[in-house]
Amino acid sequence: MGNKKYSIGIDYGTESGRAVLVDTATGEEVTTSVYNYKDGVIDEILLDGKTKLRPDWALQNPEDYITTLKVTIPALLKKSGVKPEDVIGLGTDFTSCTILPIDKNGAPLCFSEKFRSNPYAWVKLWKHHAAQPEADIINETARKRNEKFLSRYGGKISSEWFFPKILETLIHAQDVYEAADRFIEGADWIVLKLTGEEKRNLCTAGYKAIWDKHEGYPSNEYFKALDPRMENVVKEKLSEIIYPLGGKAGEITAEMSELTGLLKGTAVSVGNVDAHVAVPAATVVDTKKMVMIMGTSICHMVLGKELKFAEGMCGVVEDGILPGYFGFEAGQSAVGDIFAWFTKNCVPPDYHDKAKRKDLSLHSLLEEKASKIKPGESGLIALDWWNGNRSILVDADLFGMIVGFTLITKPEEIYRALIEATAFGTNKIIKTLENSGVAVDEIYACGGLPEKNKLLMQIYSDVTGRKIKIARSSQASALGSAIFGAVAAGKNRGGYDSIEEAAKNMAHLKQETYKPIPENQKIYSRLFTEYEILHDHFGRGENDVMKRLKKIKQTIIKNKS
Amino acid sequence: MGNKKYSIGIDYGTESGRAVLVDTATGEEVTTSVYNYKDGVIDEILLDGKTKLRPDWALQNPEDYITTLKVTIPALLKKSGVKPEDVIGLGTDFTSCTILPIDKNGAPLCFSEKFRSNPYAWVKLWKHHAAQPEADIINETARKRNEKFLSRYGGKISSEWFFPKILETLIHAQDVYEAADRFIEGADWIVLKLTGEEKRNLCTAGYKAIWDKHEGYPSNEYFKALDPRMENVVKEKLSEIIYPLGGKAGEITAEMSELTGLLKGTAVSVGNVDAHVAVPAATVVDTKKMVMIMGTSICHMVLGKELKFAEGMCGVVEDGILPGYFGFEAGQSAVGDIFAWFTKNCVPPDYHDKAKRKDLSLHSLLEEKASKIKPGESGLIALDWWNGNRSILVDADLFGMIVGFTLITKPEEIYRALIEATAFGTNKIIKTLENSGVAVDEIYACGGLPEKNKLLMQIYSDVTGRKIKIARSSQASALGSAIFGAVAAGKNRGGYDSIEEAAKNMAHLKQETYKPIPENQKIYSRLFTEYEILHDHFGRGENDVMKRLKKIKQTIIKNKS
Repeated sequence: MGNKKYSIGIDYGTESGRAVLVDTATGEEVTTSVYNYKDGVIDEILLDGKTKLRPDWALQNPEDYITTLKVTIPALLKKSGVKPEDVIGLGTDFTSCTILPIDKNGAPLCFSEKFRSNPYAWVKLWKHHAAQPEADIINETARKRNEKFLSRYGGKISSEWFFPKILETLIHAQDVYEAADRFIEGADWIVLKLTGEEKRNLCTAGYKAIWDKHEGYPSNEYFKALDPRMENVVKEKLSEIIYPLGGKAGEITAEMSELTGLLKGTAVSVGNVDAHVAVPAATVVDTKKMVMIMGTSICHMVLGKELKFAEGMCGVVEDGILPGYFGFEAGQSAVGDIFAWFTKNCVPPDYHDKAKRKDLSLHSLLEEKASKIKPGESGLIALDWWNGNRSILVDADLFGMIVGFTLITKPEEIYRALIEATAFGTNKIIKTLENSGVAVDEIYACGGLPEKNKLLMQIYSDVTGRKIKIARSSQASALGSAIFGAVAAGKNRGGYDSIEEAAKNMAHLKQETYKPIPENQKIYSRLFTEYEILHDHFGRGENDVMKRLKKIKQTIIKNKS
Repeated sequence: MGNKKYSIGIDYGTESGRAVLVDTATGEEVTTSVYNYKDGVIDEILLDGKTKLRPDWALQNPEDYITTLKVTIPALLKKSGVKPEDVIGLGTDFTSCTILPIDKNGAPLCFSEKFRSNPYAWVKLWKHHAAQPEADIINETARKRNEKFLSRYGGKISSEWFFPKILETLIHAQDVYEAADRFIEGADWIVLKLTGEEKRNLCTAGYKAIWDKHEGYPSNEYFKALDPRMENVVKEKLSEIIYPLGGKAGEITAEMSELTGLLKGTAVSVGNVDAHVAVPAATVVDTKKMVMIMGTSICHMVLGKELKFAEGMCGVVEDGILPGYFGFEAGQSAVGDIFAWFTKNCVPPDYHDKAKRKDLSLHSLLEEKASKIKPGESGLIALDWWNGNRSILVDADLFGMIVGFTLITKPEEIYRALIEATAFGTNKIIKTLENSGVAVDEIYACGGLPEKNKLLMQIYSDVTGRKIKIARSSQASALGSAIFGAVAAGKNRGGYDSIEEAAKNMAHLKQETYKPIPENQKIYSRLFTEYEILHDHFGRGENDVMKRLKKIKQTIIKNKS
């Protein structure tokens, strides 16, 4: 192992924590260790075994985050044989907005006897969706007061974000709100645990907590208008100093050295978010390159040199992805999820049998069959709104649609139409960014989908008319965290002094590149025109049938129960 | 058996001929015999084993029609023990428009050595779809010349009908056209074979060959405008005398007595069409009652006292269903076919397994699951155009659509939405008829679907807001033919002198009646409003996406081959 130096990246996901040990010189991923959270997503009953949760709740146990450190880091060291003194840095990334209330000492309120049976004292996971009424108040109040910040978030604050979740706690569990010394992102809490220091990261502050480099948080007047008790929420409940990405948060404490086997004093980077941290891991440290993190959903990330307001972005945050750039984030709320829904619910037994006989996954069989269909040949077109539309319509009350069925429509034709629909959704985002002055010349893909489905990648290339390069790493977020860990350590200790430099050495692409096939592009540009017509018709109020169907559905379900 | 008298009805279907022996006093169906056509639907290669057919062709072998007589009638007599002298009449009905060219002696041209390898010499089955270019000429010419007859057929002559099929033969096989002494409906040919006499029936003349009681056929000038060689087509190639339904065509010949075992001289009714003959078999011999023949598709039949022009009817023909009434016919081109498509292509293995374990058909399992869903609960709505729209848009270039998918949409929810969509399609037809002055107070259903699917019948009742009664017979067409056979025999021989009287005694309903459930009706009236908005948007030119998708598809398929 000689003089080699290493960095560890830990990616805190929804179901597990994934750690990777990376050679800081080459980016080689030496070894990986995954811990599946013992308590996973808590969405039915609290750990006390008696407190029931309502359907749109999703909590976590912070204990699982600590156990991830305790399990994975020693495993990395053991499996690789790397000595702790050669691990120069540790970086972490987290789902977001995932938040918890803590006491003065940084201990989660849910650990206390007093609050352990109170759901509001636990970690609200990013996909906790119970704060929609509070999000409505937040948006309504912002619109009434003409708050400028709304335009940075595509005109709407999501119920998944920071202040809706806090307002929900204030309204429904004032005792928890009052007992909380601070509300903190999981991303920052784990860094606090590792280093003993709270260093609120700019990424979650900017994208989830309405913070801006120049404007700061929303005003006290605004918070007062939400609820008088919230007037001083920033001062009372938040850490006000915001730390840029790429910085060093602190060093491993003695206690954490004990727990992990890393040396006390090992550098720890400022916290980050799973999607954002993947950008340099996909080699992207410059403008005009869109990074797509493709899995159950897609996050789209682009760097820009100027502030632009594009319709329906998740957010634009200065320094939010890389210091020195405006970070534009957009997203599609269901992509891989749609294909999973389809294979679970809509594929007949003979396809399952055939896949088994050919020793293929059902996805692979469908891909094989779908790849024999030419663009436009099925006569089908779909709107990809199975889980609403995140960008650019920012509307959860939109639903999926397929048009063009005949009596000889085949499952693989529907499967292909669904892939195409998600590609059209991405293309709509690209067009919207470009129309607002944010250039997208090339696409860089990472995440689970590009690994699995070549047809999908070719369709995305054909539909967007752009080259797509694929990140070499199949765990871009964890690698990204390792890159930030190496930067936190700095050049003197065998790391790097800039994210750009670290990415240049540690991030790589695969050989294969997808290029648009001109004849496919031609057909898809006609089909995309159809998609846009349907998109606007159903999504912009010409025919609000989807919303009316939802209202009817809600009435029925309410009356039934 | 004593003094009992019997009538035989034969229903010539697409794949088989079905014969039933009926007690003329009570309508009791004593016994049934089915002959599955040896050559079935000929759609790939002629019987010479070498002449290939193009994809949209569908032919039959007239030999199968004769064999049906030879096989089924002796079987009826044998199984029932009824003596030939107690069988007083024979009625037949046929698919339509199913036509063939014959020589002076009534022999099909396809039986001759000269023409047996010429596809145009065979029976063109109703679903032979190759004459679309000729239908286009026929419609275009009619529109240019402002031919009044168009309005009797919803503004469009179908490619399935009589003159498009003849013009196709003239254009592509002039030798067959010239060699043909007449072109004849299968419905009339079988009567010709049975009786030795050609008695062209009013039903097929009116609904398929543009004949009207007052106007007759289209003018020679019109036919000349189609093709100069067709100027005298009526005189040269058709039998010009038209015989009303309910009449006696003639009597069983010696040759046919030999073949069938029936007595020479047994009365044979004028030919009829499978859907139309079912109306009295469903007890309907009066106005304001819609008969739905429900199977792979639906035919809707209503009697009226006045001529009305309703949008997109298949046809309105005076005396076309029952003498003394205007017969209104409308239709949906795919109903049971859509459910069959769904169960074949879209239902996952665990549903198949569960159906097997519960010893249910997949349809029954889906029905069971779907019946637990309330109207409006799934949030789904569909357009039922999997095989185009027959009524009221009369447009084959329309396709199916489903809107409202989420990540938790279940197969049974889609299944129910498809049933609802076909019910909305029927309701649209009813509303259109009523808006044109044709009243529909009640519905009478027959055919395969009402037997199998109670949920479907309840949904039709809820959606249309009308009582639905069910014909007792599961073979309404064959029973209808037996009724017409009894009328052909007449009262003196133990039959009846009118269709009304015959139906009163021989046609019956089941006990069960479906009545609209008010709370469902309320929801469905809201959903039907949504259906109508989508119907008009996609079907009346607001967004012709379906037609454009079809054009793209056709280009792709053409370039591929």
